[in-house]
Amino acid sequence: MPRFKLTLEYDGGPFVGWQHQANGLSVQEVLETAIFRFCGEQVRVQAAGRTDSGVHALGQVAHADLEKEADTDTVRDALNHHMKPHPVAVIAAEMVPETFEARFSATGRAYLYRILDRRAPPVLDRGRVWHVRSRLDAEAMQEAARALVGRHDFTSFRAKECQARSPVKTLDRLVVNRTGDEIRLIAEARSFLHHQVRNMVGTLALVGQGRWTRADVERALAVRDRAAAGPTAPPQGLYLTGVRYDRDAPRAPQQSP
Amino acid sequence: MPRFKLTLEYDGGPFVGWQHQANGLSVQEVLETAIFRFCGEQVRVQAAGRTDSGVHALGQVAHADLEKEADTDTVRDALNHHMKPHPVAVIAAEMVPETFEARFSATGRAYLYRILDRRAPPVLDRGRVWHVRSRLDAEAMQEAARALVGRHDFTSFRAKECQARSPVKTLDRLVVNRTGDEIRLIAEARSFLHHQVRNMVGTLALVGQGRWTRADVERALAVRDRAAAGPTAPPQGLYLTGVRYDRDAPRAPQQSP
Repeated sequence: MPRFKLTLEYDGGPFVGWQHQANGLSVQEVLETAIFRFCGEQVRVQAAGRTDSGVHALGQVAHADLEKEADTDTVRDALNHHMKPHPVAVIAAEMVPETFEARFSATGRAYLYRILDRRAPPVLDRGRVWHVRSRLDAEAMQEAARALVGRHDFTSFRAKECQARSPVKTLDRLVVNRTGDEIRLIAEARSFLHHQVRNMVGTLALVGQGRWTRADVERALAVRDRAAAGPTAPPQGLYLTGVRYDRDAPRAPQQSP
Repeated sequence: MPRFKLTLEYDGGPFVGWQHQANGLSVQEVLETAIFRFCGEQVRVQAAGRTDSGVHALGQVAHADLEKEADTDTVRDALNHHMKPHPVAVIAAEMVPETFEARFSATGRAYLYRILDRRAPPVLDRGRVWHVRSRLDAEAMQEAARALVGRHDFTSFRAKECQARSPVKTLDRLVVNRTGDEIRLIAEARSFLHHQVRNMVGTLALVGQGRWTRADVERALAVRDRAAAGPTAPPQGLYLTGVRYDRDAPRAPQQSP
Protein backbone atom coordinates (compact mmCIF):
# COMPACT_ATOMS: atom_id res chain seq x y z
CA MET A 1 0.00 0.00 0.00
CA PRO A 2 1.72 3.18 -1.17
CA ARG A 3 2.61 5.78 1.42
CA PHE A 4 2.28 9.46 0.50
CA LYS A 5 4.14 12.35 2.07
CA LEU A 6 1.89 15.43 1.96
CA THR A 7 3.24 18.95 2.41
CA LEU A 8 0.48 21.22 3.68
CA GLU A 9 -0.27 24.92 3.95
CA TYR A 10 -3.07 26.13 6.19
CA ASP A 11 -4.56 29.12 7.93
CA GLY A 12 -4.86 28.01 11.56
CA GLY A 13 -7.49 30.64 12.37
CA PRO A 14 -10.69 28.62 11.89
CA PHE A 15 -9.37 25.37 13.37
CA VAL A 16 -8.99 23.85 16.84
CA GLY A 17 -5.45 22.94 15.74
CA TRP A 18 -3.91 20.11 13.75
CA GLN A 19 -5.22 17.31 15.91
CA HIS A 20 -8.74 15.93 16.31
CA GLN A 21 -10.68 17.55 19.14
CA ALA A 22 -14.22 17.01 20.29
CA ASN A 23 -14.91 20.77 20.39
CA GLY A 24 -14.41 21.76 16.78
CA LEU A 25 -12.94 21.21 13.36
CA SER A 26 -9.27 20.23 13.07
CA VAL A 27 -6.96 20.37 10.06
CA GLN A 28 -6.49 16.61 10.44
CA GLU A 29 -10.24 16.07 10.06
CA VAL A 30 -10.40 18.25 6.94
CA LEU A 31 -7.60 16.23 5.36
CA GLU A 32 -8.99 12.84 6.42
CA THR A 33 -12.45 13.77 5.12
CA ALA A 34 -10.92 14.80 1.77
CA ILE A 35 -9.10 11.45 1.54
CA PHE A 36 -12.38 9.66 2.23
CA ARG A 37 -14.16 11.64 -0.49
CA PHE A 38 -11.33 10.96 -2.92
CA CYS A 39 -10.98 7.20 -2.45
CA GLY A 40 -13.51 6.02 0.10
CA GLU A 41 -10.78 5.06 2.55
CA GLN A 42 -10.91 5.91 6.24
CA VAL A 43 -7.33 6.80 6.90
CA ARG A 44 -5.69 8.26 9.97
CA VAL A 45 -3.02 10.78 8.95
CA GLN A 46 -0.06 11.72 11.10
CA ALA A 47 1.76 15.05 11.03
CA ALA A 48 5.23 16.22 11.98
CA GLY A 49 3.97 19.02 14.21
CA ARG A 50 0.73 19.08 16.19
CA THR A 51 0.10 22.79 15.77
CA ASP A 52 -2.24 24.50 18.24
CA SER A 53 -5.46 26.31 17.44
CA GLY A 54 -4.74 29.48 15.49
CA VAL A 55 -1.21 28.45 14.47
CA HIS A 56 -0.54 28.49 10.72
CA ALA A 57 1.51 26.21 8.52
CA LEU A 58 3.45 26.93 5.35
CA GLY A 59 5.15 23.54 5.30
CA GLN A 60 3.46 21.06 7.65
CA VAL A 61 4.19 17.45 6.64
CA ALA A 62 1.83 14.51 7.06
CA HIS A 63 1.82 10.97 5.74
CA ALA A 64 -1.02 8.69 4.70
CA ASP A 65 -1.28 5.17 3.27
CA LEU A 66 -3.71 4.93 0.35
CA GLU A 67 -4.88 1.73 -1.31
CA LYS A 68 -6.09 3.57 -4.35
CA GLU A 69 -3.64 3.62 -7.22
CA ALA A 70 -3.06 7.25 -8.13
CA ASP A 71 -0.09 9.34 -9.17
CA THR A 72 1.15 12.12 -6.91
CA ASP A 73 -0.28 14.96 -9.04
CA THR A 74 -3.72 13.36 -8.93
CA VAL A 75 -3.54 12.89 -5.16
CA ARG A 76 -2.54 16.54 -4.63
CA ASP A 77 -5.19 17.96 -6.98
CA ALA A 78 -7.99 15.69 -5.77
CA LEU A 79 -7.34 16.42 -2.10
CA ASN A 80 -7.23 20.15 -2.82
CA HIS A 81 -10.55 19.84 -4.62
CA HIS A 82 -12.17 17.98 -1.73
CA MET A 83 -10.77 20.29 0.98
CA LYS A 84 -12.56 23.35 -0.46
CA PRO A 85 -13.58 25.78 0.92
CA HIS A 86 -11.42 25.17 3.98
CA PRO A 87 -8.16 27.14 4.05
CA VAL A 88 -5.99 24.05 3.76
CA ALA A 89 -3.99 22.99 0.70
CA VAL A 90 -1.67 20.17 -0.25
CA ILE A 91 1.33 21.92 -1.78
CA ALA A 92 3.09 18.70 -2.76
CA ALA A 93 2.42 14.96 -2.64
CA GLU A 94 5.29 12.46 -2.92
CA MET A 95 5.55 8.68 -2.72
CA VAL A 96 7.79 7.61 0.16
CA PRO A 97 9.01 4.27 1.54
CA GLU A 98 6.79 2.79 4.22
CA THR A 99 9.56 3.38 6.75
CA PHE A 100 8.86 7.13 6.41
CA GLU A 101 6.90 8.63 9.28
CA ALA A 102 6.04 12.32 9.15
CA ARG A 103 6.55 12.73 12.88
CA PHE A 104 9.24 10.26 13.86
CA SER A 105 11.45 10.53 10.75
CA ALA A 106 11.67 14.31 11.07
CA THR A 107 15.15 15.57 11.92
CA GLY A 108 14.35 19.27 12.01
CA ARG A 109 11.44 21.64 12.39
CA ALA A 110 11.42 25.34 11.53
CA TYR A 111 9.01 27.98 12.82
CA LEU A 112 8.48 31.62 11.97
CA TYR A 113 6.94 34.07 14.41
CA ARG A 114 5.71 37.45 13.13
CA ILE A 115 5.22 40.53 15.33
CA LEU A 116 3.75 43.76 13.94
CA ASP A 117 4.92 46.53 16.28
CA ARG A 118 3.15 49.72 15.30
CA ARG A 119 0.26 51.74 16.63
CA ALA A 120 -2.12 51.03 13.74
CA PRO A 121 -3.87 47.67 13.80
CA PRO A 122 -2.93 45.01 11.24
CA VAL A 123 -5.12 45.06 8.15
CA LEU A 124 -3.76 42.88 5.37
CA ASP A 125 -2.10 40.70 8.04
CA ARG A 126 -5.06 40.54 10.41
CA GLY A 127 -4.99 37.13 12.11
CA ARG A 128 -1.49 36.56 10.76
CA VAL A 129 0.68 38.50 13.23
CA TRP A 130 0.93 39.39 16.91
CA HIS A 131 0.07 43.06 17.14
CA VAL A 132 2.19 44.91 19.72
CA ARG A 133 1.28 48.59 19.87
CA SER A 134 4.64 49.91 21.06
CA ARG A 135 7.97 49.68 19.29
CA LEU A 136 10.20 46.77 20.33
CA ASP A 137 14.01 46.77 20.31
CA ALA A 138 14.72 43.96 17.85
CA GLU A 139 18.47 44.15 18.38
CA ALA A 140 18.12 43.62 22.12
CA MET A 141 15.79 40.70 21.39
CA GLN A 142 18.37 39.18 19.03
CA GLU A 143 21.08 39.55 21.67
CA ALA A 144 18.91 37.90 24.35
CA ALA A 145 17.87 35.14 21.93
CA ARG A 146 21.49 33.95 21.87
CA ALA A 147 21.09 32.88 25.50
CA LEU A 148 18.50 30.30 24.44
CA VAL A 149 20.39 28.68 21.56
CA GLY A 150 22.01 25.32 22.32
CA ARG A 151 21.17 22.32 24.50
CA HIS A 152 19.17 23.32 27.58
CA ASP A 153 16.51 22.20 29.97
CA PHE A 154 13.62 24.32 28.63
CA THR A 155 11.22 23.68 31.52
CA SER A 156 10.72 27.44 31.92
CA PHE A 157 9.38 27.60 28.35
CA ARG A 158 7.26 24.45 28.46
CA ALA A 159 3.46 24.30 28.66
CA LYS A 160 1.93 22.45 31.59
CA GLU A 161 0.23 20.07 29.15
CA CYS A 162 3.47 19.16 27.37
CA GLN A 163 3.79 15.41 26.87
CA ALA A 164 7.47 15.25 25.94
CA ARG A 165 9.43 12.80 28.05
CA SER A 166 12.29 15.22 28.61
CA PRO A 167 12.41 19.03 28.85
CA VAL A 168 15.94 18.96 27.43
CA LYS A 169 16.07 20.12 23.83
CA THR A 170 18.70 21.51 21.49
CA LEU A 171 17.68 24.81 19.94
CA ASP A 172 19.75 25.05 16.76
CA ARG A 173 18.80 28.55 15.70
CA LEU A 174 16.87 31.53 17.03
CA VAL A 175 17.23 34.73 15.04
CA VAL A 176 15.38 38.03 15.25
CA ASN A 177 15.13 40.42 12.28
CA ARG A 178 13.24 43.60 11.63
CA THR A 179 11.72 44.57 8.26
CA GLY A 180 9.83 47.86 8.49
CA ASP A 181 7.14 47.55 11.15
CA GLU A 182 7.53 43.80 11.42
CA ILE A 183 9.82 41.66 13.57
CA ARG A 184 10.39 38.11 12.36
CA LEU A 185 11.77 35.40 14.63
CA ILE A 186 13.00 32.14 13.14
CA ALA A 187 13.43 29.10 15.39
CA GLU A 188 14.91 25.77 14.33
CA ALA A 189 15.39 22.55 16.29
CA ARG A 190 15.03 18.81 15.90
CA SER A 191 11.87 19.17 17.98
CA PHE A 192 10.23 21.64 20.36
CA LEU A 193 8.34 21.38 23.62
CA HIS A 194 4.66 22.33 23.67
CA HIS A 195 4.37 26.17 23.43
CA GLN A 196 8.16 26.48 23.48
CA VAL A 197 8.38 28.91 20.56
CA ARG A 198 5.48 31.06 21.79
CA ASN A 199 6.91 31.13 25.32
CA MET A 200 10.33 32.14 24.02
CA VAL A 201 8.75 34.88 21.89
CA GLY A 202 6.66 36.17 24.80
CA THR A 203 9.82 36.32 26.92
CA LEU A 204 11.90 38.03 24.24
CA ALA A 205 9.13 40.60 23.81
CA LEU A 206 9.79 41.66 27.43
CA VAL A 207 13.36 42.32 26.34
CA GLY A 208 12.12 44.23 23.29
CA GLN A 209 10.02 46.43 25.61
CA GLY A 210 13.10 47.18 27.72
CA ARG A 211 11.58 45.52 30.80
CA TRP A 212 13.97 42.57 30.72
CA THR A 213 17.64 42.13 29.81
CA ARG A 214 19.52 39.16 28.37
CA ALA A 215 20.58 38.34 31.95
CA ASP A 216 16.91 38.04 32.97
CA VAL A 217 16.34 35.56 30.16
CA GLU A 218 19.37 33.54 31.26
CA ARG A 219 18.05 33.49 34.82
CA ALA A 220 14.58 32.43 33.68
CA LEU A 221 16.10 29.55 31.72
CA ALA A 222 18.32 28.48 34.62
CA VAL A 223 15.60 28.21 37.28
CA ARG A 224 13.55 25.66 35.28
CA ASP A 225 10.19 27.07 36.31
CA ARG A 226 7.53 28.12 33.82
CA ALA A 227 6.47 30.96 36.14
CA ALA A 228 9.94 32.49 35.83
CA ALA A 229 9.71 33.16 32.09
CA GLY A 230 7.50 35.56 30.14
CA PRO A 231 3.94 35.10 28.88
CA THR A 232 2.90 32.90 25.97
CA ALA A 233 2.77 34.88 22.73
CA PRO A 234 -0.55 34.48 20.89
CA PRO A 235 -0.95 31.70 18.30
CA GLN A 236 -1.79 33.80 15.24
CA GLY A 237 1.82 35.01 14.81
CA LEU A 238 3.21 31.47 14.58
CA TYR A 239 3.90 29.50 11.37
CA LEU A 240 5.31 25.99 10.98
CA THR A 241 7.42 26.77 7.92
CA GLY A 242 9.08 23.45 7.23
CA VAL A 243 10.12 20.00 8.37
CA ARG A 244 13.46 18.45 7.50
CA TYR A 245 14.05 14.79 6.76
CA ASP A 246 17.58 13.53 6.31
CA ARG A 247 17.58 10.93 3.60
CA ASP A 248 19.94 8.64 5.46
CA ALA A 249 18.49 9.15 8.90
CA PRO A 250 16.99 5.97 10.35
CA ARG A 251 13.42 5.90 11.55
CA ALA A 252 14.05 6.85 15.13
CA PRO A 253 11.00 7.27 17.38
CA GLN A 254 13.15 6.77 20.48
CA GLN A 255 14.98 10.03 19.78
CA SER A 256 11.81 12.12 19.47
CA PRO A 257 9.53 13.66 22.08
CA MET B 1 -7.56 74.87 9.19
CA PRO B 2 -4.82 72.24 9.54
CA ARG B 3 -4.31 69.80 6.68
CA PHE B 4 -3.44 66.21 7.51
CA LYS B 5 -1.62 63.77 5.26
CA LEU B 6 -2.90 60.26 6.01
CA THR B 7 -1.00 57.13 4.96
CA LEU B 8 -3.41 54.22 4.64
CA GLU B 9 -3.31 50.44 4.49
CA TYR B 10 -6.36 48.51 3.32
CA ASP B 11 -7.62 45.19 2.09
CA GLY B 12 -9.41 46.02 -1.14
CA GLY B 13 -11.48 42.83 -1.11
CA PRO B 14 -14.69 44.05 0.56
CA PHE B 15 -14.78 47.47 -1.13
CA VAL B 16 -16.01 48.89 -4.43
CA GLY B 17 -12.66 50.64 -4.63
CA TRP B 18 -11.20 53.83 -3.19
CA GLN B 19 -13.80 56.15 -4.61
CA HIS B 20 -17.47 56.65 -3.68
CA GLN B 21 -19.82 54.49 -5.73
CA ALA B 22 -23.56 54.12 -5.55
CA ASN B 23 -23.33 50.31 -5.56
CA GLY B 24 -21.39 49.61 -2.41
CA LEU B 25 -18.98 50.65 0.31
CA SER B 26 -15.79 52.49 -0.66
CA VAL B 27 -12.60 53.02 1.33
CA GLN B 28 -13.20 56.77 0.98
CA GLU B 29 -16.59 56.42 2.67
CA VAL B 30 -15.12 54.41 5.55
CA LEU B 31 -12.50 57.11 6.13
CA GLU B 32 -14.93 60.02 5.77
CA THR B 33 -17.37 58.36 8.17
CA ALA B 34 -14.58 57.87 10.72
CA ILE B 35 -13.64 61.55 10.44
CA PHE B 36 -17.27 62.51 11.02
CA ARG B 37 -17.47 60.29 14.11
CA PHE B 38 -14.21 61.72 15.40
CA CYS B 39 -14.93 65.42 15.01
CA GLY B 40 -18.40 65.86 13.55
CA GLU B 41 -17.01 67.34 10.35
CA GLN B 42 -18.23 66.32 6.91
CA VAL B 43 -15.01 66.27 4.99
CA ARG B 44 -14.25 65.07 1.49
CA VAL B 45 -10.89 63.32 1.40
CA GLN B 46 -8.74 63.00 -1.69
CA ALA B 47 -6.29 60.20 -2.40
CA ALA B 48 -3.21 59.84 -4.56
CA GLY B 49 -4.48 56.74 -6.34
CA ARG B 50 -8.09 55.82 -7.02
CA THR B 51 -7.63 52.07 -6.59
CA ASP B 52 -10.23 49.78 -8.15
CA SER B 53 -12.44 47.30 -6.35
CA GLY B 54 -10.34 44.47 -4.92
CA VAL B 55 -7.03 46.36 -5.17
CA HIS B 56 -5.12 46.63 -1.89
CA ALA B 57 -2.99 49.41 -0.45
CA LEU B 58 0.04 49.32 1.80
CA GLY B 59 0.78 53.00 1.39
CA GLN B 60 -2.14 54.92 -0.10
CA VAL B 61 -1.97 58.63 0.74
CA ALA B 62 -4.95 60.91 1.32
CA HIS B 63 -5.33 64.41 2.71
CA ALA B 64 -8.08 65.99 4.77
CA ASP B 65 -8.64 69.40 6.35
CA LEU B 66 -9.87 69.21 9.94
CA GLU B 67 -11.10 72.11 12.03
CA LYS B 68 -10.69 70.16 15.23
CA GLU B 69 -7.45 70.82 17.06
CA ALA B 70 -5.74 67.49 17.55
CA ASP B 71 -2.19 66.19 17.38
CA THR B 72 -1.22 63.68 14.72
CA ASP B 73 -1.11 60.68 17.08
CA THR B 74 -4.64 61.42 18.25
CA VAL B 75 -5.91 61.76 14.69
CA ARG B 76 -4.32 58.42 13.69
CA ASP B 77 -5.58 56.51 16.74
CA ALA B 78 -9.07 58.02 16.71
CA LEU B 79 -9.60 57.30 13.00
CA ASN B 80 -8.38 53.73 13.48
CA HIS B 81 -10.81 53.33 16.34
CA HIS B 82 -13.74 54.64 14.30
CA MET B 83 -12.90 52.60 11.17
CA LYS B 84 -13.27 49.29 13.02
CA PRO B 85 -14.10 46.61 11.97
CA HIS B 86 -13.38 47.58 8.38
CA PRO B 87 -9.98 46.43 7.09
CA VAL B 88 -8.64 49.96 6.72
CA ALA B 89 -6.00 51.58 8.93
CA VAL B 90 -4.23 54.92 9.13
CA ILE B 91 -0.55 53.99 9.42
CA ALA B 92 0.60 57.55 9.85
CA ALA B 93 -0.90 61.03 10.16
CA GLU B 94 1.20 64.15 9.52
CA MET B 95 0.48 67.87 9.41
CA VAL B 96 1.24 69.32 5.98
CA PRO B 97 1.08 72.77 4.40
CA GLU B 98 -2.22 73.57 2.75
CA THR B 99 -0.47 73.51 -0.61
CA PHE B 100 -0.09 69.76 -0.22
CA GLU B 101 -2.55 67.72 -2.26
CA ALA B 102 -2.39 63.94 -2.01
CA ARG B 103 -3.15 63.50 -5.68
CA PHE B 104 -1.63 66.49 -7.42
CA SER B 105 1.52 66.89 -5.33
CA ALA B 106 2.50 63.24 -5.86
CA THR B 107 5.66 62.82 -7.93
CA GLY B 108 5.76 59.04 -7.91
CA ARG B 109 3.55 56.02 -7.34
CA ALA B 110 4.70 52.47 -6.71
CA TYR B 111 2.69 49.29 -7.18
CA LEU B 112 3.37 45.67 -6.36
CA TYR B 113 1.70 42.82 -8.21
CA ARG B 114 1.82 39.29 -6.73
CA ILE B 115 1.33 36.11 -8.75
CA LEU B 116 1.25 32.68 -7.08
CA ASP B 117 2.14 30.17 -9.80
CA ARG B 118 1.63 26.70 -8.40
CA ARG B 119 -1.00 23.98 -8.72
CA ALA B 120 -2.29 24.23 -5.15
CA PRO B 121 -4.69 27.08 -4.43
CA PRO B 122 -3.57 29.99 -2.25
CA VAL B 123 -4.46 29.56 1.41
CA LEU B 124 -2.75 32.13 3.62
CA ASP B 125 -2.71 34.51 0.63
CA ARG B 126 -6.26 33.88 -0.53
CA GLY B 127 -7.60 37.12 -2.02
CA ARG B 128 -4.07 38.56 -1.94
CA VAL B 129 -2.52 37.09 -5.10
CA TRP B 130 -3.38 36.13 -8.66
CA HIS B 131 -3.37 32.36 -8.73
CA VAL B 132 -1.93 30.95 -11.98
CA ARG B 133 -1.94 27.16 -11.97
CA SER B 134 1.00 26.62 -14.32
CA ARG B 135 4.58 27.71 -13.80
CA LEU B 136 5.57 31.01 -15.43
CA ASP B 137 9.02 31.90 -16.76
CA ALA B 138 9.86 34.91 -14.57
CA GLU B 139 13.13 35.58 -16.38
CA ALA B 140 11.37 35.85 -19.74
CA MET B 141 8.82 38.18 -18.11
CA GLN B 142 11.64 40.36 -16.74
CA GLU B 143 13.26 40.53 -20.18
CA ALA B 144 9.96 41.49 -21.85
CA ALA B 145 9.21 44.04 -19.09
CA ARG B 146 12.24 46.04 -20.25
CA ALA B 147 10.35 46.84 -23.47
CA LEU B 148 7.76 48.78 -21.46
CA VAL B 149 10.11 50.91 -19.37
CA GLY B 150 10.51 54.52 -20.48
CA ARG B 151 8.29 57.14 -22.11
CA HIS B 152 5.64 55.58 -24.34
CA ASP B 153 2.11 55.94 -25.60
CA PHE B 154 0.49 53.26 -23.43
CA THR B 155 -2.87 53.18 -25.27
CA SER B 156 -2.58 49.39 -25.61
CA PHE B 157 -2.50 49.09 -21.82
CA ARG B 158 -5.21 51.64 -21.04
CA ALA B 159 -8.74 50.87 -19.88
CA LYS B 160 -11.59 52.20 -22.05
CA GLU B 161 -12.85 54.19 -19.06
CA CYS B 162 -9.51 55.91 -18.47
CA GLN B 163 -9.93 59.66 -17.95
CA ALA B 164 -6.28 60.70 -18.35
CA ARG B 165 -5.84 63.46 -20.89
CA SER B 166 -2.88 61.78 -22.53
CA PRO B 167 -1.93 58.10 -22.98
CA VAL B 168 1.74 59.06 -22.89
CA LYS B 169 3.39 58.12 -19.60
CA THR B 170 6.91 57.48 -18.39
CA LEU B 171 7.32 54.10 -16.74
CA ASP B 172 10.36 54.51 -14.49
CA ARG B 173 10.69 50.92 -13.31
CA LEU B 174 9.19 47.51 -14.01
CA VAL B 175 10.97 44.57 -12.43
CA VAL B 176 9.99 40.94 -12.11
CA ASN B 177 11.36 38.68 -9.36
CA ARG B 178 10.62 35.17 -8.24
CA THR B 179 10.66 34.01 -4.58
CA GLY B 180 9.65 30.37 -4.28
CA ASP B 181 6.19 29.91 -5.82
CA GLU B 182 5.57 33.65 -6.04
CA ILE B 183 6.39 36.17 -8.75
CA ARG B 184 6.49 39.80 -7.68
CA LEU B 185 6.31 42.67 -10.16
CA ILE B 186 7.17 46.18 -9.05
CA ALA B 187 6.06 49.14 -11.18
CA GLU B 188 6.98 52.77 -10.57
CA ALA B 189 5.97 55.91 -12.42
CA ARG B 190 4.90 59.47 -11.76
CA SER B 191 1.40 58.29 -12.62
CA PHE B 192 -0.33 55.41 -14.38
CA LEU B 193 -3.25 55.07 -16.76
CA HIS B 194 -6.38 53.28 -15.53
CA HIS B 195 -5.67 49.50 -15.40
CA GLN B 196 -2.17 50.09 -16.79
CA VAL B 197 -0.39 47.90 -14.24
CA ARG B 198 -2.93 45.08 -14.46
CA ASN B 199 -2.85 45.20 -18.28
CA MET B 200 0.95 45.08 -18.29
CA VAL B 201 0.90 42.14 -15.87
CA GLY B 202 -1.71 40.26 -17.92
CA THR B 203 0.44 40.77 -21.00
CA LEU B 204 3.68 39.72 -19.32
CA ALA B 205 1.91 36.58 -18.05
CA LEU B 206 1.51 35.57 -21.72
CA VAL B 207 5.28 35.82 -21.98
CA GLY B 208 5.67 33.80 -18.79
CA GLN B 209 3.49 31.08 -20.29
CA GLY B 210 5.71 30.96 -23.38
CA ARG B 211 2.86 32.10 -25.64
CA TRP B 212 4.36 35.53 -26.29
CA THR B 213 7.91 36.87 -26.72
CA ARG B 214 9.39 40.26 -25.90
CA ALA B 215 8.91 41.15 -29.58
CA ASP B 216 5.17 40.52 -29.23
CA VAL B 217 5.04 42.91 -26.28
CA GLU B 218 6.93 45.54 -28.30
CA ARG B 219 4.49 45.13 -31.18
CA ALA B 220 1.48 45.38 -28.84
CA LEU B 221 2.86 48.63 -27.41
CA ALA B 222 3.61 50.06 -30.86
CA VAL B 223 0.15 49.56 -32.38
CA ARG B 224 -1.62 51.65 -29.67
CA ASP B 225 -4.68 49.44 -29.55
CA ARG B 226 -5.99 47.89 -26.32
CA ALA B 227 -7.08 44.80 -28.25
CA ALA B 228 -3.46 44.13 -29.23
CA ALA B 229 -2.20 43.59 -25.68
CA GLY B 230 -2.97 40.80 -23.19
CA PRO B 231 -5.86 40.48 -20.75
CA THR B 232 -6.30 42.50 -17.56
CA ALA B 233 -4.81 40.68 -14.57
CA PRO B 234 -7.27 40.38 -11.65
CA PRO B 235 -7.39 43.09 -8.96
CA GLN B 236 -6.56 40.97 -5.90
CA GLY B 237 -2.86 40.67 -6.82
CA LEU B 238 -2.36 44.46 -6.94
CA TYR B 239 -1.08 46.67 -4.10
CA LEU B 240 -0.50 50.42 -4.08
CA THR B 241 2.68 50.29 -2.00
CA GLY B 242 3.65 53.94 -1.78
CA VAL B 243 3.38 57.48 -3.05
CA ARG B 244 6.34 59.82 -3.34
CA TYR B 245 6.27 63.54 -2.70
CA ASP B 246 9.33 65.61 -3.46
CA ARG B 247 9.70 68.26 -0.82
CA ASP B 248 10.60 70.96 -3.28
CA ALA B 249 8.19 69.98 -6.01
CA PRO B 250 5.58 72.65 -6.66
CA ARG B 251 1.89 71.82 -6.49
CA ALA B 252 1.40 70.96 -10.09
CA PRO B 253 -2.04 69.73 -11.14
CA GLN B 254 -1.33 70.67 -14.74
CA GLN B 255 1.31 67.93 -14.95
CA SER B 256 -0.95 65.16 -13.69
CA PRO B 257 -3.49 62.91 -15.41
